[in-house]
Amino acid sequence: MAPNGCSFLSAGMSNSASRLAQQMAFLIEADKLKNIFRQSYISDGSRRENDAEHSWHLAIMAITLHEHANQPDLDLLKVLRMVILHDIVEIDAGDTYIYDEAGKADQERREREAADRLFALLPSDQTAAFRSVWDEFEAAETAEAKFAKAIDRLHPMLLNYLAKGKTWQEHSVVASQVRLINQKIEYGSESLWAYAQELIENAIQDGMLPAT
Amino acid sequence: MAPNGCSFLSAGMSNSASRLAQQMAFLIEADKLKNIFRQSYISDGSRRENDAEHSWHLAIMAITLHEHANQPDLDLLKVLRMVILHDIVEIDAGDTYIYDEAGKADQERREREAADRLFALLPSDQTAAFRSVWDEFEAAETAEAKFAKAIDRLHPMLLNYLAKGKTWQEHSVVASQVRLINQKIEYGSESLWAYAQELIENAIQDGMLPAT
Repeated sequence: MAPNGCSFLSAGMSNSASRLAQQMAFLIEADKLKNIFRQSYISDGSRRENDAEHSWHLAIMAITLHEHANQPDLDLLKVLRMVILHDIVEIDAGDTYIYDEAGKADQERREREAADRLFALLPSDQTAAFRSVWDEFEAAETAEAKFAKAIDRLHPMLLNYLAKGKTWQEHSVVASQVRLINQKIEYGSESLWAYAQELIENAIQDGMLPAT
Repeated sequence: MAPNGCSFLSAGMSNSASRLAQQMAFLIEADKLKNIFRQSYISDGSRRENDAEHSWHLAIMAITLHEHANQPDLDLLKVLRMVILHDIVEIDAGDTYIYDEAGKADQERREREAADRLFALLPSDQTAAFRSVWDEFEAAETAEAKFAKAIDRLHPMLLNYLAKGKTWQEHSVVASQVRLINQKIEYGSESLWAYAQELIENAIQDGMLPAT
């Protein structure tokens, strides 16, 4: 039975209607991503960003910036599947701040369990296909995963710069940490890493981010 | 100069850095979509949904449901470009409620002007390419546009059903209007239109939506 009162398709239905009911159950559950809030503020600094908005922003970054990938002929459709799905596990596992070493300790296990539950809502062929996309993103080995990870790292830096460094200041983060955590951007895109480094330098000069 | 204080890439930079600066200016402007709120509530009814969240939800619907398109071998990448970009014009034009006949009168002009301004932030080849995707969506003639429009119509109905018909009630909408406005779903997907009709019937039976 589909959650949240949309069970009307689950009684006496054909195989294809049953398949659709499973897909709708997944899509209804996915709505909860709009209530998972991140550390980043939206660019005007008025409120924190949620994971659904973040995922959309990565998608529009992907279609705009893919020419800057180290491998520019990558499979853009796969990148989009990755960024659309990458944070869905936070419905169960919550958002783990990238500078939170304690939270990161069991993050992998919590997120894997969430992936087990969430993708199992889908018809079995899609359970496998969506999980494969998510696993490939997490492994960060293919060109598509490296580029998706690069924009996933660049995005909060950009928002944070626009919001005058609010999140860095709240967590007493300094520039050397920002460089260390984000240098992996270069695995996906050297030019976006160059941009990110300029952003860090400007954040220091503008007094948003202590150098050390 | 890029807006919002990200002008650091605009002085003395190479052509490729200038191109990236234009793309970043577009992506920074796009952040404003997170402040454009729709009539729909998120599924728990706690608050209205914004356009960025809505666009992400359409993207995850597209990758999950494209097999139900009347033309299931459609170009999914194009559908994703459409749903990612389709509401960006509301940054300038605002959200127009689908049952608001007065607002709809000049909606087309307002949105076209917004498209002119927003896509012009990009390098000229992308201005043309993104505008072409948006125009194709608006024209609703290709298989990709019809399917993207179908999920764009189904999505608020689904949220509204989950939120116990709150938006229908606030605007005194009745089932015959919901059927009339949304029957175009069948141009993109007959099976999603069948699902939508069941949803309407259940909304009536559950007392969320008056039949007439």
